[in-house]
Amino acid sequence: MQTLKTEQVYRGRVLSITKDTVSLPSGRVTIREKVTHPGSVGILPVLENGDLIFVKQFRYVIGSDLLEIPAGTIEEGESPEECATRELLEETGYQAGRLDLLSSFYTSPGYSNEFMWLFKATDLRSGEAKPMADESIEIKVVSLGEALSLIKNGGIRDVKTICAILLYTTAG
Amino acid sequence: MQTLKTEQVYRGRVLSITKDTVSLPSGRVTIREKVTHPGSVGILPVLENGDLIFVKQFRYVIGSDLLEIPAGTIEEGESPEECATRELLEETGYQAGRLDLLSSFYTSPGYSNEFMWLFKATDLRSGEAKPMADESIEIKVVSLGEALSLIKNGGIRDVKTICAILLYTTAG
Repeated sequence: MQTLKTEQVYRGRVLSITKDTVSLPSGRVTIREKVTHPGSVGILPVLENGDLIFVKQFRYVIGSDLLEIPAGTIEEGESPEECATRELLEETGYQAGRLDLLSSFYTSPGYSNEFMWLFKATDLRSGEAKPMADESIEIKVVSLGEALSLIKNGGIRDVKTICAILLYTTAG
Repeated sequence: MQTLKTEQVYRGRVLSITKDTVSLPSGRVTIREKVTHPGSVGILPVLENGDLIFVKQFRYVIGSDLLEIPAGTIEEGESPEECATRELLEETGYQAGRLDLLSSFYTSPGYSNEFMWLFKATDLRSGEAKPMADESIEIKVVSLGEALSLIKNGGIRDVKTICAILLYTTAG
């Protein structure tokens, strides 16, 4: 596949959109739309008793509240681990004594290059949450059993959160 | 959160991008960028012997091959089940005798309203794959054990595929 022409059609705060004209192996010429994303992290915080810490927040793009693990976008110059440490503290007030990579993956490889690193955070020390000025976040502590029920009954509708819980359940 | 102004900054073949000016509960005014997506499906095809059918294809937006479950974007007027049936046939040549919903979720709720329905497809009848003119797809049949190893060793780097395998493992 060969790129014949590339055009940046939008450049925003976090996202930019490129519209490319590409030539396929068959010779056919077609369009590929691509969202360029700086990458992101998700963090599954596990308390000493095995309970999990979720956050509930209003997600503007879907127009409703969503129950999720803490997560965020990687800032320039940040490593995934640094981003995970920062986002966990900002959203929950917890500092992670230990981060273990659960998995890493593309979230929507059909149209976005967003790559996400998923961590398990343990040895947690509680402090004060420092949400960004435009975040309003409620903390929810749930047991693993409750989390699995929430996946089954549709109470969790966020793929990184489903994935984190299932990876933790199967891989520990 | 109140929308003060909404501006469509890009309208493409599959995606459109809206840039909204919103007023937060605190009174602060900020920007929200939103990708509008028609929704999508992923299908985990399970053969009678328990083996899984994956597809390997070049993903332009990430610049490399990716091993995934069959998947696709919902077309206008299509139900998720109809889309799953069509995409499975197009990409693998298999017709599903039975579709069961494994889960449904947002893929990137920070910036996209894409909602995905994940199905398990069984009672499969093989036929001829009919990929779209701009798709070049290779079929890979793997055992559940191999699939779990591919998650662990990074051979699968696609969140819907990881999620589908783990849901199938834990929920059957």
